Amino acid sequence: MQTHPLFYTLPEPFTCRAGGVIPEVTLAYETYGTLNADKSNAILVFHALSGSQHAAGTCEDVPEAEPYWTDECVPGWWDSFIGPDRAINTNKFFVICANYLGGCYGSTGPSSPHPGDGKPYGSRFPFLKTDDIVRSQAKLLDHLGIEKLHAVTGPSVGGLLCLTFATLFPERVDIVLPLGTGPRLTNLQRLQNFEQITAIESDHYFNCGDYYEGPRPDSGLMLARMIAHKTYVSLETMASRARGELVQPKDRFSFYQLGHQMESYMFHHGKKFVQRFDANTYLRIMAMWQRFSLKHTAGVDDISEVFPRCAHQRYMIFSIDTDVCFYPDEQADLERLLKAAGVRCLRVTVHSEKGHDSFLLEPDLFTPHIRHTLEYTW
Amino acid sequence: MQTHPLFYTLPEPFTCRAGGVIPEVTLAYETYGTLNADKSNAILVFHALSGSQHAAGTCEDVPEAEPYWTDECVPGWWDSFIGPDRAINTNKFFVICANYLGGCYGSTGPSSPHPGDGKPYGSRFPFLKTDDIVRSQAKLLDHLGIEKLHAVTGPSVGGLLCLTFATLFPERVDIVLPLGTGPRLTNLQRLQNFEQITAIESDHYFNCGDYYEGPRPDSGLMLARMIAHKTYVSLETMASRARGELVQPKDRFSFYQLGHQMESYMFHHGKKFVQRFDANTYLRIMAMWQRFSLKHTAGVDDISEVFPRCAHQRYMIFSIDTDVCFYPDEQADLERLLKAAGVRCLRVTVHSEKGHDSFLLEPDLFTPHIRHTLEYTW
Repeated sequence: MQTHPLFYTLPEPFTCRAGGVIPEVTLAYETYGTLNADKSNAILVFHALSGSQHAAGTCEDVPEAEPYWTDECVPGWWDSFIGPDRAINTNKFFVICANYLGGCYGSTGPSSPHPGDGKPYGSRFPFLKTDDIVRSQAKLLDHLGIEKLHAVTGPSVGGLLCLTFATLFPERVDIVLPLGTGPRLTNLQRLQNFEQITAIESDHYFNCGDYYEGPRPDSGLMLARMIAHKTYVSLETMASRARGELVQPKDRFSFYQLGHQMESYMFHHGKKFVQRFDANTYLRIMAMWQRFSLKHTAGVDDISEVFPRCAHQRYMIFSIDTDVCFYPDEQADLERLLKAAGVRCLRVTVHSEKGHDSFLLEPDLFTPHIRHTLEYTW
Repeated sequence: MQTHPLFYTLPEPFTCRAGGVIPEVTLAYETYGTLNADKSNAILVFHALSGSQHAAGTCEDVPEAEPYWTDECVPGWWDSFIGPDRAINTNKFFVICANYLGGCYGSTGPSSPHPGDGKPYGSRFPFLKTDDIVRSQAKLLDHLGIEKLHAVTGPSVGGLLCLTFATLFPERVDIVLPLGTGPRLTNLQRLQNFEQITAIESDHYFNCGDYYEGPRPDSGLMLARMIAHKTYVSLETMASRARGELVQPKDRFSFYQLGHQMESYMFHHGKKFVQRFDANTYLRIMAMWQRFSLKHTAGVDDISEVFPRCAHQRYMIFSIDTDVCFYPDEQADLERLLKAAGVRCLRVTVHSEKGHDSFLLEPDLFTPHIRHTLEYTW
């Protein structure tokens, strides 16, 4: 299935939660399936950190996402989960996925031209919070005439947004499907995110974010991706599969000689990543994650006060046993918070050798429970 | 007790295992206690990554270690373990601790003047392997007339050297006391070390290691230290203790506003560290750790062949339950290897809230077993 993004431009300037106004916001989005007559079959999918609106099918080219739309972006990131008779069954449901506000795949972001002077926003693009992403996508739902979703879902950082949506607009959704995510920032995430932020900000070419006319801060973004990547995959599996010749990257190392295929693997993936992603977008998302707080977003004093407003919802929570990006403990924490608030929830742990990325790679581990939750009332 | 380093210059140029010759090697070392008449009471201590020869007492100044000898270096790093009636009892034992070859605290390293032109070695300083450090210190023992040690010990990276010494020169020591270390590089260490290496090599001012006449690669070294530091401490303890005002470091961040005391803590410690350490030394030690292999050092095909030569030795192994730099599994691995080779060993796990750094901070957890091993034959 060939897909093309749609674009929706908000009718008004967008005021960000932490301050700062974006004069004109456009969201790039895709939809799959057909919206029914009473507009009750819509499912909103939040992509993960480095994903895009392109969740299913094949999209060869997005001119609005130049130069970031590379071959890696062509297959939909959740194609094995979304489609006819798949986990999210497009014969029944109308699926919407939008690139984050602040993104680099077609939604307005730091690399977009500022309407004032036509030059990229760069340092002028404001700090984002999770509820900015969520509120902007709620406006897209308004535009589509969807008052209430059938379900909201998202893996990883997309799961943080899924939980933010469900708790910020509890009346707009009944079924909540977070995968490999958590209800609050952990200490380890806080430090690993801070390392990545520091890596980008320390890059000589970052230039306060105004680098679009010169060399890009590739070293910093590459290192940030390497730091993150080790939390996405099973190191044991990676080690056992690491094969092939060790290639010494002459442009980045003068003293150190790579000595193991895992180093090559990390370096190679870091280098590929910087071709398809904008450092300013990465920084906005990491900074957003650092400030993730359901409590603050909901305007309450304690996280235990967040979920009582969600008593009508049902949560299907997935843990991945080998996940070291969002540890199973974090989903257990979410489950405890929900149960304490009297909210219906189920949690299953899938057993995988692939780590966090299992949610991209192993649809058979997730599909039955996703379908059961979306298609039957428990 | 005021201490001052001693210096020993090797009589010949030093050929490194991976190639490269250092024309003149000087080792800075300290000793505590008195060598007995038959020279049988010596204990060699290997310091950890960022330590020095200054293990005990107070050393105000080391002119040879300028500009790296800061206030942080003044107290001996293992002072609470070494002294009269302490874990390593200087009423009985003669303790030796030398700064690594390649170090920046007085031993010949990348910041030392090259005898050819008087300028710092910089990029000319070769790649080091663990057995280079160990062989250089064995020559110091020769100089001191010590054929056989009473014991060898070391925590963390010092533990890797302790194990290298014990297996490379099994005839030179009977008692081996590794703390919070492991018998082989783990996949997680490999990636975290590689991140740190990449951080330094990517710094704009690294200049292939020849930066001594210009700005130093402080950003890269600071980030490397931050990446490492999170594995040294208990994040839960750090989070609960993080207090005080959030100071925004204006010289390093343009977009990101620090939002949590743990970020300040990490940044502050990273910044302090670069004042007392040389990036080239750091890089040499990280690269050495990446190539750590008892099997290769011993010249055998499998690690199981390393320890049979150590049948006369006794190992006292310490695990720290909250250690995420060298996980307790790694010391269990060492224990299995030793037992399979018929080598006597004891292992104890200390329970600490402090993580890896417990070996610096909590002498009472370690002292009884260290004394028992050093002073009685079990």
